[in-house]
Amino acid sequence: MTQSQVTTSKDTSPAHRADWIEAIAFDADGLVPAIAQDAESGRVLMFAWMNREAVEKTVKLGEAVYFSRSRQKLWHKGEQSGHTQTLREIRLDCDGDVLLLSIEQRGGIACHTGRESCFYRRLEGGRWQVTDEVKKSPGAIYGDR
Amino acid sequence: MTQSQVTTSKDTSPAHRADWIEAIAFDADGLVPAIAQDAESGRVLMFAWMNREAVEKTVKLGEAVYFSRSRQKLWHKGEQSGHTQTLREIRLDCDGDVLLLSIEQRGGIACHTGRESCFYRRLEGGRWQVTDEVKKSPGAIYGDR
Repeated sequence: MTQSQVTTSKDTSPAHRADWIEAIAFDADGLVPAIAQDAESGRVLMFAWMNREAVEKTVKLGEAVYFSRSRQKLWHKGEQSGHTQTLREIRLDCDGDVLLLSIEQRGGIACHTGRESCFYRRLEGGRWQVTDEVKKSPGAIYGDR
Repeated sequence: MTQSQVTTSKDTSPAHRADWIEAIAFDADGLVPAIAQDAESGRVLMFAWMNREAVEKTVKLGEAVYFSRSRQKLWHKGEQSGHTQTLREIRLDCDGDVLLLSIEQRGGIACHTGRESCFYRRLEGGRWQVTDEVKKSPGAIYGDR
């Protein structure tokens, strides 16, 4: 993992803004998949979607902002849990239709189940075996609602 | 990264097969996103889609088989380029709708542009800067067609 900071543009003119965001090929729903990877360990922590506004806010804030398909609105990761994701760098794939975020995961918990990574199940012997412990219970993270 | 082998099921009865594949939540198009990560370096190499058959073949073969949305057919990665991906492990996320593959990338090239990773562009100063060299030209990989 490189240690370089994401350079957020100080020039907010539409023409300049367009330079990089226009290279992103959003799908028919206006979304692009985003993979969040821990900047230090390299572990893939989660996968979510972004719309154009989410991408812009992510780069501007320097924290991951996704688009919740279930709630159909922007979702500033950690807004409830405190488990924000500080953006270290953002990459675009060859087809321009997938983003890869290198992030610092606050609290060391990305998953709503209270685990470090959402990918806590591994296929072993024809079963999905849970490999990760719950670091903090969802009740403790979100409050019992 | 763990070094454990993927245990492919020897019991091919439908009931047993269903145990793990039924846990995968395919989308309305019958697809699930799949992230391929280098088992050694931890680098995210590519992102693609799988249908049910692709997932089954991947686990059975021990090599990544995707579903090409553009060609609407199974795509055994490396079938043309030789850049196959040996499956080390496969993980499922909390919602059951994203797969994470830990793979050994043959030839060290996952991208059709001849680069190690499809994520070879990083946002720097409001531009997507290419960070990776082409290790082998597409012409040399696929033959000039």
